[in-house]
Amino acid sequence: MDNWKDLKPFLEPQAIAIIGLSRKTGEHGNNALENLLSYGYRGKIYPVNPNTSEILGVKTYPSIKDVEGPVDLAVISTHRSRVPAHVRECAEKGIKCISIVTQGFIDAGDEEGRRLFKEIADIAKSSGCRILGPNSFGSANVFHNFCSAFARISMQRNPVGLICQTGGLFNSSSEFRFIGKGIDIGNICNVDFADCLEYFEHDPEVKVIVLHIEGMLDARRFLNVAKRIARKKPIVALKTGKNEQAAKAVSSHTGSLAGQHEIWEAALKQSGIISVDSFEELTDVTRAFCLLPTLTKPDICVATFSGGMAIMALDAMRNTGLRAGRLSQTTLSKIEKLSPEWLSVGNPVDFWPIVMGSDSMTRALSDILEILLSDHEFGGLLFIQIIPAPAMSREIKGLLDSLQVKYPDRPLVAALTGPCSFELVKELQNEGRVLAFPAPERAVRALARLYQYTDFRLRSPAN
Amino acid sequence: MDNWKDLKPFLEPQAIAIIGLSRKTGEHGNNALENLLSYGYRGKIYPVNPNTSEILGVKTYPSIKDVEGPVDLAVISTHRSRVPAHVRECAEKGIKCISIVTQGFIDAGDEEGRRLFKEIADIAKSSGCRILGPNSFGSANVFHNFCSAFARISMQRNPVGLICQTGGLFNSSSEFRFIGKGIDIGNICNVDFADCLEYFEHDPEVKVIVLHIEGMLDARRFLNVAKRIARKKPIVALKTGKNEQAAKAVSSHTGSLAGQHEIWEAALKQSGIISVDSFEELTDVTRAFCLLPTLTKPDICVATFSGGMAIMALDAMRNTGLRAGRLSQTTLSKIEKLSPEWLSVGNPVDFWPIVMGSDSMTRALSDILEILLSDHEFGGLLFIQIIPAPAMSREIKGLLDSLQVKYPDRPLVAALTGPCSFELVKELQNEGRVLAFPAPERAVRALARLYQYTDFRLRSPAN
Repeated sequence: MDNWKDLKPFLEPQAIAIIGLSRKTGEHGNNALENLLSYGYRGKIYPVNPNTSEILGVKTYPSIKDVEGPVDLAVISTHRSRVPAHVRECAEKGIKCISIVTQGFIDAGDEEGRRLFKEIADIAKSSGCRILGPNSFGSANVFHNFCSAFARISMQRNPVGLICQTGGLFNSSSEFRFIGKGIDIGNICNVDFADCLEYFEHDPEVKVIVLHIEGMLDARRFLNVAKRIARKKPIVALKTGKNEQAAKAVSSHTGSLAGQHEIWEAALKQSGIISVDSFEELTDVTRAFCLLPTLTKPDICVATFSGGMAIMALDAMRNTGLRAGRLSQTTLSKIEKLSPEWLSVGNPVDFWPIVMGSDSMTRALSDILEILLSDHEFGGLLFIQIIPAPAMSREIKGLLDSLQVKYPDRPLVAALTGPCSFELVKELQNEGRVLAFPAPERAVRALARLYQYTDFRLRSPAN
Repeated sequence: MDNWKDLKPFLEPQAIAIIGLSRKTGEHGNNALENLLSYGYRGKIYPVNPNTSEILGVKTYPSIKDVEGPVDLAVISTHRSRVPAHVRECAEKGIKCISIVTQGFIDAGDEEGRRLFKEIADIAKSSGCRILGPNSFGSANVFHNFCSAFARISMQRNPVGLICQTGGLFNSSSEFRFIGKGIDIGNICNVDFADCLEYFEHDPEVKVIVLHIEGMLDARRFLNVAKRIARKKPIVALKTGKNEQAAKAVSSHTGSLAGQHEIWEAALKQSGIISVDSFEELTDVTRAFCLLPTLTKPDICVATFSGGMAIMALDAMRNTGLRAGRLSQTTLSKIEKLSPEWLSVGNPVDFWPIVMGSDSMTRALSDILEILLSDHEFGGLLFIQIIPAPAMSREIKGLLDSLQVKYPDRPLVAALTGPCSFELVKELQNEGRVLAFPAPERAVRALARLYQYTDFRLRSPAN
């Protein structure tokens, strides 16, 4: 069963036909051709539009039948009534992979939508075509300078394979791009989660797999496949449609059955999938898997500028398996040597009383953090810092960069708050080397998910 | 019992003595005098430092006894061993309010710390002084251009009264300043939460009260006072020290007993306090209370660019009391008139199929949002938008600004995601008129807390 190999043209197309491409270009053009040109996509592009002879200097074709060369991916975004005819023509031309962007099939909830969907599914079945969607944003592979979507996406090369049911995740959060590579399976004709999972299983450029699940056709197969793959690569999932109203909205969005939330939660967990609770957590946890080495122990050292914030971090460890471990005797002695005599040193390491008396706050801080990172009793280090002024921001940036270079095998996460932390967190996010969050609980939540994965791997080793 | 009036000098001091002020100034100076001068504080300042005659051009005094004029607030930050002597001298000079910044009393966990703390408490008792701290960051009132802390804070005039046990909250999150007015009660000698609550109860500049609680001396009195005040002004609280490790850390931070988490949760809720779960939620919910009018109904209209994100928002409504209400017949007809024929219109209102066909996306969007804001079957409107490009960011900014001006009595919250949303969310946060978040669940969480307060007020009306 190597069905996943069929999906290659969705992610590495050599020649794309864009059926129903608009002549509108520019800022509000939402023009897939314009995007592909801007990405530097190197395959062939055949725009299909019967009302013109060229768009952006690229020759257009009245119909897919008029395209002379071979085509391995067709993208269709015409009115729903004309989609079956286009699919048939594509099948006749021998195109094996088709993305349908058009909405209004089973999501519309009307009889006509269901009829048209069935017509498409029947053509796919008889011809052996693989159909992404309908109601798919398309597919993307930034390593191939490729995205078929009408909206422009970032070409940042994150090692992430995204499988989703909303195009919203292609352009994703303000803090992180989930693509890497991405497939929006939309209303699921015959490309399902399991197929795409297997594709990313075999893709060496994908280190973390991200799922946005509304519903699916064959959950049993999905869970079996996921269980195998989760032993090799972390799979982070956001399952939506948790309450009655949301489930109803799912049926008019992707036409899927959302299923009962509690059953899904249990099944995902059992398969070793990291099931997260929100869009923000999906972003945070994916970033953590991309940036941090394995968190081998649940013992976390918390080094903090603010005693109060450290307690918030400890609160967030509740029911996660993480804990603030004890400092080793060596570490304790070293930190005590730097401390005022009255300070009762422990974990959290409240470093304000230590650094406030020093000539160079940054050097004192660097000494402390190096001592703590060198203590292998800890699985990882959470560093909490308030950034009141831009100068401090630059110093902390330099410190974090150098620690990340010097201790690449030690999970280090920074929680940065205060008036000047916003820009610093953003800068670190954009650079993609040091993991930083604007709140202590978010940092802990990400570490907790890393440890959940370690724990799963220990109990279910890969073959 | 008008004890709260005693606290006035902590928030509106006419003449401050700063005992133990360092000569160090500039970027890493942490100099309270330098800060006060930069804020434009208009009261008298008496720096006390025996080793110099002036700091930053301000005359210094060898001891508090040498200060000629009356002083209503003294701030002490000398070594712990000298603090009791300074407190005694302040009391002898008739100073009734004293902030102790110095650490190392009951937080140190040693015998000497406890002894010194008792000595201070005894002087306070015999002299009738009110003592903030020890281990207090101080107090602040931006309406008075005043903050006694060594770290510089923002002078943004938010209508928030903060009572906390960590100075970290004075400089707070990257997204919002909790001050307004602020009191760090630190290790609680004889200024407790209840006193400060009563102060803010009577302060017309404070509309929202924010608490950061690690532990307290008299929880019963606090809860009684809070129950009265919560009927008049929203009180948002983050109670920390929830698990064993965190509670232990509390005892070495503020020397308080954290108490059992579940008991606290129940008690806070019963008093009508909005008890939040994290630093981020504290920030989000406080912003919502500052910016939005009352959310009178739990029915929320969700208008969305992304079907998938709207489902995330509905998921977040689970167990909150909020729900996606039905569109009124009038609203439904108006939206259907704008929609493609196949679109099954409901709530969430998925506006992408509507705006994609229009000449001006912003005008179409504006029409839709105005229709929805005018439907008073809804308590509020959640608007979800992906911002892929800077031009869209400017258009959405203009749209949100004008809707906020036109519908000031309608709770409107925006969830803005996508590559160009970060800067827009930040800009809206800084301006402080339109409430915006970078994730749909955070917007719903804030609305849910607004409704929780409405519900409390309905069940426990103010006298």
